[in-house]
Amino acid sequence: MSLTNATPLEVAQAARLGSRELAVLSTEERNAALTAIHRALADGKDEVLAANAKDLEAANQAAEGGTLSQSLVKRLDLGKKGKYEDMLQGILDVRDLEDPINKTTARTLLDDNLTLSRITCPIGVLLIIFEARPEVIANISALALKSGNAAILKGGKESSYSFAAIASIISTALSSTAVPSDCLQLVQTHDVIKDLLSLDTYIDLCIPRGGNKLVRFVKSSTSIPVLGHADGICTTYLCSDYPAQSATKIILDAKTSYPAGCNALEQLIVHESALTTSLPSIASALLQSGVSLRCDATSLSALQNSLDAHSATLLQPASDTDFDTEFLDLTLAIKTVPDLASAITHINTHSSHHTDAILTTSSSTAHAFLAAIDSASVYWNTSTRMADGQRYGFGTEVGISTNKIHSRGPVGLEGLTIYKWVLVGDGQVSAEYGAGGRKWKHEKVAVGEGEWVCADEEEREVLRRFREGRGKGANGV
Amino acid sequence: MSLTNATPLEVAQAARLGSRELAVLSTEERNAALTAIHRALADGKDEVLAANAKDLEAANQAAEGGTLSQSLVKRLDLGKKGKYEDMLQGILDVRDLEDPINKTTARTLLDDNLTLSRITCPIGVLLIIFEARPEVIANISALALKSGNAAILKGGKESSYSFAAIASIISTALSSTAVPSDCLQLVQTHDVIKDLLSLDTYIDLCIPRGGNKLVRFVKSSTSIPVLGHADGICTTYLCSDYPAQSATKIILDAKTSYPAGCNALEQLIVHESALTTSLPSIASALLQSGVSLRCDATSLSALQNSLDAHSATLLQPASDTDFDTEFLDLTLAIKTVPDLASAITHINTHSSHHTDAILTTSSSTAHAFLAAIDSASVYWNTSTRMADGQRYGFGTEVGISTNKIHSRGPVGLEGLTIYKWVLVGDGQVSAEYGAGGRKWKHEKVAVGEGEWVCADEEEREVLRRFREGRGKGANGV
Repeated sequence: MSLTNATPLEVAQAARLGSRELAVLSTEERNAALTAIHRALADGKDEVLAANAKDLEAANQAAEGGTLSQSLVKRLDLGKKGKYEDMLQGILDVRDLEDPINKTTARTLLDDNLTLSRITCPIGVLLIIFEARPEVIANISALALKSGNAAILKGGKESSYSFAAIASIISTALSSTAVPSDCLQLVQTHDVIKDLLSLDTYIDLCIPRGGNKLVRFVKSSTSIPVLGHADGICTTYLCSDYPAQSATKIILDAKTSYPAGCNALEQLIVHESALTTSLPSIASALLQSGVSLRCDATSLSALQNSLDAHSATLLQPASDTDFDTEFLDLTLAIKTVPDLASAITHINTHSSHHTDAILTTSSSTAHAFLAAIDSASVYWNTSTRMADGQRYGFGTEVGISTNKIHSRGPVGLEGLTIYKWVLVGDGQVSAEYGAGGRKWKHEKVAVGEGEWVCADEEEREVLRRFREGRGKGANGV
Repeated sequence: MSLTNATPLEVAQAARLGSRELAVLSTEERNAALTAIHRALADGKDEVLAANAKDLEAANQAAEGGTLSQSLVKRLDLGKKGKYEDMLQGILDVRDLEDPINKTTARTLLDDNLTLSRITCPIGVLLIIFEARPEVIANISALALKSGNAAILKGGKESSYSFAAIASIISTALSSTAVPSDCLQLVQTHDVIKDLLSLDTYIDLCIPRGGNKLVRFVKSSTSIPVLGHADGICTTYLCSDYPAQSATKIILDAKTSYPAGCNALEQLIVHESALTTSLPSIASALLQSGVSLRCDATSLSALQNSLDAHSATLLQPASDTDFDTEFLDLTLAIKTVPDLASAITHINTHSSHHTDAILTTSSSTAHAFLAAIDSASVYWNTSTRMADGQRYGFGTEVGISTNKIHSRGPVGLEGLTIYKWVLVGDGQVSAEYGAGGRKWKHEKVAVGEGEWVCADEEEREVLRRFREGRGKGANGV
């Protein structure tokens, strides 16, 4: 990694060149780089925490002055029990995941001795823009190197001392590995985000990690594909047949276990028959947990009639905008619908296509809901808070995508790869085929795992010469 | 299909609503719609050809006036022998492909009775902008319906009578099927492309089918993801060990079999040792086929010394811009390199990442090339003209993508799908897991083909009510 004050163009061009070399490193070479980073960051813990203390001091001052929130200060703190160790373990976890590149994912025999293979490969150069949390830099660096991608990192100014310390340690560690230092660059210059976002010739994918203001800004400022989500307006549709106790447990978890999360519940859609069955006890539990309920006219009236007098006074009428709002807080909007069709239409119109759930005992109803809802994650009888790469078994996540192109939902290593089509022939040409000529065979061939990684020592030597830019063409190549 | 003069916003909103219904139709319902379209277009051949004759008449006048090229006039002609029948057969070919949606592509047991499945689904609403060829409308309509996507079609004005006739026939045919007519809309209003390109709330993917001017315009005018390629600057790297006869056959095919194709060869990269071995006979054959050769200084000098006097006079010196140009004509740029590393660097810098080939007998050299070249298709000992969805066995293609996100290379039905994550539980919540709580199982589960399509009659009835917007909530849902 290099800490750089170079211009955005220089940064991007260097990352592009570095990415070409990184893409042809072996699994072992990329894993060895992660081992080296892990060891160096373990050894450099005191140094990083000292830098982090400086960031914390500045942040505490800002918090006292009212220009920074206390929750942001907490997110900055790398010294919190277990946080640094979790960051270190995360690097090893990523290292030990299956290599996502050089995998053959499809193979077709087009004709005798003419074989088409689809091989996974890195996307190229990633631009990661993130806010305060300093441990993200280690996490993202590990994901990028593991998947063979170069990364340009631009962090928030609140963590600048921590970032610089971590980047400096990673940089030294990488210098003893096969990974070119330009493959990870931490940009320290201010006000360069707009310039970086214009470099679509060199940067293949942009991943903003932060609040919806950041994501919206990035999406509207670049023609580079952006992976992420601006909003997390998640909903749950409550059917009257679902037991009140289970419904309460699920809805409380979805709303209260981490209200600031993008997968937290923001809207409860209630079938009208559930207004008098399960909704009252669910609403009581939510109110007791400090949740503000913003109810449409029908649910407000029903709850006022069924809740005790004190609880009833806590209910609030919903405005139209409440059904297009990500509260990120202990607030829940409640909407009554007459049927499944209305629930589906409401959710497809007002949710942010992140994660939506149905609670019902009816398999037919559930399947219809799961089929008709147009969201990245659709759940039956569980909490929207399940939407998370670690919970999905990806080891870690790059982010959560509400895009409908490439990757959707929690995105792991696979989302940082694409494929190339490799065609191996022995002199066949296109004009031989078609009317009156040879016929295509188009036979699907079963593929074993990783069989593309056939790299013999001679190939590795050719690639080494390519990487070192001093190929001598000894073999006439 | 509807022929519409509605505003772009009305068109896009209607397509979005239609797409929700189309997405939940069964395989049989979508296939039946393709059968109906096929039959109607077969019956309506005379009507379509009469409309096409009007377009041709106008085009011929424009060609005489010099405002339209003869090749464009040819592309307009649907009456050309076999063309109409090919268009009809294409609809049945697409119908008979495997259904790309509702396939389970991964499954993980997160915990007991908590199963995560990745299910393929349509992207949503496609915007297809195409130039003259009228048969594309039938082709694209078939691909969109088969994959469960709604499509907004905007064609070039040269084919307007043909488009209107085909759209009218498709519209009538669809009215007797389960496909809502708003799922296919042919926009007839002029000057609406810019407005359509701004509707990223309703349109999920834009596919421009036409020349690089159109593609560049679309890419620079929208924040909707664009699938396609602006340029097809394809290269072939000739090593000295590859037999001259096979090399000549491959290079002639790549350059001359269809010079206007995006997969045609534009640059020959020659190892310096091949300058005096195979290059002279290859150059002779190219010159005899009428190809203009634009040679760098080294290859120019070598060929002047080895070709006969007449041929030598035909050689042209290359300018720097020739190595960044898509000629789309019988012109080829020739570049000499000292080694594989230089060839890789040149190609990664100057090719358009569409299709690049190496000609060599060395497996190590070939594998190094295939690994290091950052293009959608990379070939060993065959012609760049092989890059085509039909040749790859996709049945048909939506286009060829040089994107590094989602789909790359020739794109078939699979490129028109994305997936959703379906999680089925029985009341589990996120707070039960983690430190001190339950442990995730994360067991991979083998998936059979198409097992998600479990739709029983009751589910289909629920979905029918949803589609018809008259769900009565009889079951409390």
